[in-house]
Amino acid sequence: MPRNPRYNTLFEPVQIGPKVAPNRFFQVPHASGMTNVSPRVRAAFRGMKAEGGWGVVCTGACSVDPSSDDSPFPNATLWDKADIKAHRLMTDAVHAHGALAGVELWHGGAAAMNRTTRFAPLSPSGVPWMATHVGFMTSARPKVMDAQDIRDLIRWHAEAAKRSEEAGFDILYVYSGMGYLPYQFLLSDYNHRTDAYGGSVQNRVRLTEELIDAVRDATGGRCAVALRISMQELRSRPSEVAESEAHEVMSYLKDAPDLFDVKMDYSAFDCAPSRYSAEGSHEQTIEFMKKVTTKPVVGVGRFTSPDTMVSMVKRGVLDLIGGARPSIADPFLPAKINEGREEDIRECIGCNICISSWHDGVWVRCTQNPTVGEEYRRGWHPEKVTKDSAGSVLVIGGGPAGLEAALTLARRGFEVSLAEARREFGGRLLWESSLPGLRQWFRVADYRLGQLAKLPNVTLYPESPLTAAEAMEFGADHIVVATGADWDRALCGPNEIPEGRLEGAAVYTPTDLAAGRIPQGPVLVHDFDNYYMGSAVSEWLSGKGLEVTHVTTAGNAAAWGFMTNEQPQVHKSFAAKGITLRTAERVTGFDGGVVRLAHMLSETPSEVAAASVVLVGTRVSRSSLAEELRALGAISVHLAGDAFAPGALAHVTYSAHKTAREISAKPLIKRDFAIPSLELQA
Amino acid sequence: MPRNPRYNTLFEPVQIGPKVAPNRFFQVPHASGMTNVSPRVRAAFRGMKAEGGWGVVCTGACSVDPSSDDSPFPNATLWDKADIKAHRLMTDAVHAHGALAGVELWHGGAAAMNRTTRFAPLSPSGVPWMATHVGFMTSARPKVMDAQDIRDLIRWHAEAAKRSEEAGFDILYVYSGMGYLPYQFLLSDYNHRTDAYGGSVQNRVRLTEELIDAVRDATGGRCAVALRISMQELRSRPSEVAESEAHEVMSYLKDAPDLFDVKMDYSAFDCAPSRYSAEGSHEQTIEFMKKVTTKPVVGVGRFTSPDTMVSMVKRGVLDLIGGARPSIADPFLPAKINEGREEDIRECIGCNICISSWHDGVWVRCTQNPTVGEEYRRGWHPEKVTKDSAGSVLVIGGGPAGLEAALTLARRGFEVSLAEARREFGGRLLWESSLPGLRQWFRVADYRLGQLAKLPNVTLYPESPLTAAEAMEFGADHIVVATGADWDRALCGPNEIPEGRLEGAAVYTPTDLAAGRIPQGPVLVHDFDNYYMGSAVSEWLSGKGLEVTHVTTAGNAAAWGFMTNEQPQVHKSFAAKGITLRTAERVTGFDGGVVRLAHMLSETPSEVAAASVVLVGTRVSRSSLAEELRALGAISVHLAGDAFAPGALAHVTYSAHKTAREISAKPLIKRDFAIPSLELQA
Repeated sequence: MPRNPRYNTLFEPVQIGPKVAPNRFFQVPHASGMTNVSPRVRAAFRGMKAEGGWGVVCTGACSVDPSSDDSPFPNATLWDKADIKAHRLMTDAVHAHGALAGVELWHGGAAAMNRTTRFAPLSPSGVPWMATHVGFMTSARPKVMDAQDIRDLIRWHAEAAKRSEEAGFDILYVYSGMGYLPYQFLLSDYNHRTDAYGGSVQNRVRLTEELIDAVRDATGGRCAVALRISMQELRSRPSEVAESEAHEVMSYLKDAPDLFDVKMDYSAFDCAPSRYSAEGSHEQTIEFMKKVTTKPVVGVGRFTSPDTMVSMVKRGVLDLIGGARPSIADPFLPAKINEGREEDIRECIGCNICISSWHDGVWVRCTQNPTVGEEYRRGWHPEKVTKDSAGSVLVIGGGPAGLEAALTLARRGFEVSLAEARREFGGRLLWESSLPGLRQWFRVADYRLGQLAKLPNVTLYPESPLTAAEAMEFGADHIVVATGADWDRALCGPNEIPEGRLEGAAVYTPTDLAAGRIPQGPVLVHDFDNYYMGSAVSEWLSGKGLEVTHVTTAGNAAAWGFMTNEQPQVHKSFAAKGITLRTAERVTGFDGGVVRLAHMLSETPSEVAAASVVLVGTRVSRSSLAEELRALGAISVHLAGDAFAPGALAHVTYSAHKTAREISAKPLIKRDFAIPSLELQA
Repeated sequence: MPRNPRYNTLFEPVQIGPKVAPNRFFQVPHASGMTNVSPRVRAAFRGMKAEGGWGVVCTGACSVDPSSDDSPFPNATLWDKADIKAHRLMTDAVHAHGALAGVELWHGGAAAMNRTTRFAPLSPSGVPWMATHVGFMTSARPKVMDAQDIRDLIRWHAEAAKRSEEAGFDILYVYSGMGYLPYQFLLSDYNHRTDAYGGSVQNRVRLTEELIDAVRDATGGRCAVALRISMQELRSRPSEVAESEAHEVMSYLKDAPDLFDVKMDYSAFDCAPSRYSAEGSHEQTIEFMKKVTTKPVVGVGRFTSPDTMVSMVKRGVLDLIGGARPSIADPFLPAKINEGREEDIRECIGCNICISSWHDGVWVRCTQNPTVGEEYRRGWHPEKVTKDSAGSVLVIGGGPAGLEAALTLARRGFEVSLAEARREFGGRLLWESSLPGLRQWFRVADYRLGQLAKLPNVTLYPESPLTAAEAMEFGADHIVVATGADWDRALCGPNEIPEGRLEGAAVYTPTDLAAGRIPQGPVLVHDFDNYYMGSAVSEWLSGKGLEVTHVTTAGNAAAWGFMTNEQPQVHKSFAAKGITLRTAERVTGFDGGVVRLAHMLSETPSEVAAASVVLVGTRVSRSSLAEELRALGAISVHLAGDAFAPGALAHVTYSAHKTAREISAKPLIKRDFAIPSLELQA
């Protein structure tokens, strides 16, 4: 189909210094977890976005020097010739599709703990980041940089810039954001210096200016130089000569780089979960940029709607539509808009499993796009599925796993029948997406239902609960059982092993709540799952007017929600709703009126009055249908999603995709390996 | 010197199946954080222990299959030919010194989250580990293993065993411990199976037996087969036919392997911090082993005393003296005993920085032995320092940094003068080791003072505070400033950035306490350092009879103490001492009677009555002497330890060692790289 002319502006080229971006789709640097130890995995992941039409594709942050080492969090390096070769794989993959390749030169300063290289973290004034997340904590306090350290930092950037050009990058970033070293110079909290690099805003900007100059000089003006800068704190601070410190900063920097990439200061705002933030949440912080510079500006906001993108350009907020999460969920987002196929866009749901991957220290994962990270290793393409099969498949269960399995199997050429017991498809998403803030998660079902509707070889059977015998009668060559999982009533023992069960009429699980059973208040919600469900249930019950006490085995509510940037918002939400929070405790008993608790670490006992208890702990696969089918002689029976192993939505779509890819096929895994470095380095 | 004949038994060979260990010193498998991505680093680290006299040296756990992937925690692999080559570097390094090389074949089951390989975790019955540490959490619940999965698991072990033999390993471990997959079959909490692998103890042992058989068969009896098994839970559980389930397990297994390596179930007990546990803390759990099997038994207990080791053998508790931590702190422990140099042993202090490295996901680090992890990369040897220098050095400050710097500089051949302002050497350790449980940490000073006393080219100057001018008059070629750091009065802001200060006569820091200023109770200790100091201060003040409220910005007390296995004990200690714990709060003000607090995440305000506040937050280097020296024209001035950048003791000794190695020398860093794998793997 032809492109909707309304979106033409998105496909205009944009000059960025000496380079020209072929369109306005700009995949900003974002963590992939793919370092120089897996350069082919990385090249395939980034290259896929260029193939999908992104005009600029950047790799993630690259350390300019061993004094910036983020281990165990994945960090790429640009330290020597082996690193140049590793990155060249990525730039070649990006250039093959006509896109520009960008690289973010990074020095973490006091936010990089140097746990492997063991250098002292560097900082303007020795002020540490006092992280409260255990994974980010260190007792290595930063060294105060002296004049030589500053000269070294500039030299490291210049040398890394030369290596970047040799690796084939077109756009080189100076990175003054997100708590990293040049940002620490900008912010007076971190910068107490009394030399030319501290004190006034003009002095605090000096390092960033010198880094920009150094990178430009090192590459003789042949590469574009971008500045990535965080504006959240600076905009909140008054300036004597401008509207804010951010405005004053821009008065010095406005002509310095070829491009501004502007963002928030803290991950929880920068990569805000859809549960608490809408698309475009950066706008109020970054909207002033285009008024204070003539250089092109790129920013993000989890944009998936082409109309919103056009509006950002037309209203003069952005020149380039930055994408991180949406480019992961759908590398082909630009191509689909270009081809008039907007309805095919696999929209990011804002669950932030992607950023959790970086916090977890591993390759990026995506709920919507299960092929992410598997482009090289398993050869999975997000759009192209080889039509390699004939035969028929019966998929039982129309939740996220059944939908994903049916879609991928149909693309492989199978005749697919998808049977769902309920009237509506969506499975667990039907209720879960009705919980506070989780509406956008239903996109997982919507996208797949939309795609399935276009395929001639798929038949949907709603309101079709199947017994094993009925399923056998179907006569399909293969059966995929995607019947989900139930929450159960196991308790958590003192050693973090499930122990015992809590029974009784006033004991509930999310499975009960989803079925319409509503507890009496006051209710105690006991969360030892520690992802989103427990806190979402507490918010939901509170919204129904119940008095809620939320008890978690972990140190904070929604403890794993730290990984997805939900955690701070959960606590604010609890405070706003009056939900009482108790941490590091487990339920040991309930007599219908009093819940007994024990501290997880000290075992100190407590009691809380409650009329009912909701347990959000473990889940049990509904896999018995598969066993019955096998008992009846079915040969090719495959579990998928929660029925295979309960998990987050990302595990569900991945598992179902993998099951669908591997029926009647031989799976292969390629291992990646670092490019050898035989140099010695000082 | 000749060996003390009292220790002769430690140097007797021990038959282990078809192999003979040359002595009783057995470096059991322990995490090094060095995976197949850094095979030369690993080989050099393990080889050093063989050089130091350990008769058996094992590498850490090696995954037998991609379905056991512990990322981001470091895990080695034995999956293909490239892995064989990577491990061969280690076995060659170990064999070069006449030691045996062991390998621990590992499948993590439901304790391995497979975050990179993305396989569903495997488990006997789908029972998950409900970890409360965020870094260990996952929402990927395990799959219930079917009969084929069990056959696969056995086959993976057999295939990995063959690869192990090809890689040169002598002792192959089956690993049924620490929550990993075969252990989960042993324990009824995890194993609810109704087939031949579940129910009775005999059935639950079956998998371990079959794994032992498979490994032995795969290598035709040419390799020794060891069983590592955790006995803590099993010993606590009654058996119908034996003294405990552990005894019953042993009745089936007693003749199965060639060696038993017996340990605790949970890291906090297995690798217990000296702060709360003495040497030999495993004995009461493992002492029965020798009574129920004729096979040799190895166990650990942070043994550093040869008399204790001899006692373990003579009393029939152990045949082989297992070492993990003591072998890291001193790879030459056996050689030193053999040579009658027991007083040269660099004794493990039990601080558990080593295990924190694994929890942190990085290479192992050691407070006592700063050369750990640098054997290959920087070419550091723990015992041999090249005598490459002449000239003189003045070291100012006789704490851990000054002592370490003086020792290493003296070994390099410098004439060293070590000046300490106080009468006693030890610096921060003098007071810190007086805090509850930290006495053994003074070994850091004791070892260095003992070594310095033997060197002719070192002069110690106690009670010698030096001004810059006085230091200049000394006329040394080089000056090392190791003057430590002070705790300061910064508060923690809402964004985890230090913000503002708390002043006043009733406000204290650990620096004040160390100087003898004791606060009035009730006292509020505000910890946002979150390592040991805050909780140790609270315990210490409580021990002085003060009423203590402990307020931390993190979700648990001593939050980073999770990494060092201190955290559970801290909470038990607080409960026993009646210390009130408040989490996830920061101090915002104090008027002499009331402390104002705000929740870190929700910002909810609170108040606590207190007569005094102790702030355990940030530290500031005492580095001004270096600046003054430079201003007076000193050319070669070097900061070391806390004066360079405040840190844990491990950072201090490392920094000082590095400073001492690098004066008048050109430092080199070698980068390691994975051995390429070009195979495709299913």
